[in-house]
Amino acid sequence: MNWTQVIGLFAGICTSSSLLPQLIKTIREKKAEEISKLMLFVLMTGVATWVVYGILKEDMPIILTNSFSLLLNITMLVLRFKYSRKGK
Amino acid sequence: MNWTQVIGLFAGICTSSSLLPQLIKTIREKKAEEISKLMLFVLMTGVATWVVYGILKEDMPIILTNSFSLLLNITMLVLRFKYSRKGK
Repeated sequence: MNWTQVIGLFAGICTSSSLLPQLIKTIREKKAEEISKLMLFVLMTGVATWVVYGILKEDMPIILTNSFSLLLNITMLVLRFKYSRKGK
Repeated sequence: MNWTQVIGLFAGICTSSSLLPQLIKTIREKKAEEISKLMLFVLMTGVATWVVYGILKEDMPIILTNSFSLLLNITMLVLRFKYSRKGK
């Protein structure tokens, strides 16, 4: 692993982990109505496309960190639907 | 511009624009207390590091879209401080 890859991994860990506080808050409060479904879909499309881009460019930090973001996003989307249905 | 770059730009536009609804909501409601400052700092560090990574790899979609994200993030951070001070 070279320095450029370390920088990319660091960048990706920061941007991925910025999704965590929202996820933790949602799990704790069991509420997610205020989170925009459209925003989650757009973000998920973006993150999934970054994974494709990473594969095309054979770029390890992009693939790894965006796959992690995608996982967090899918979890968030599942919770969004789960808790909004409960609330009704 | 080749197809890979188009895919990268599309990915970046999606992930950047996912910051917009929060920004618009904050500008409209003039409230930003509920947004975590730590989360904004982590996200900003991540996005800024992606720009550095893009420069190192000479990767145009990464540079362009993360610069835009950085701009949105800085605006958000400024509003976060502005509105939380007003609220007190």
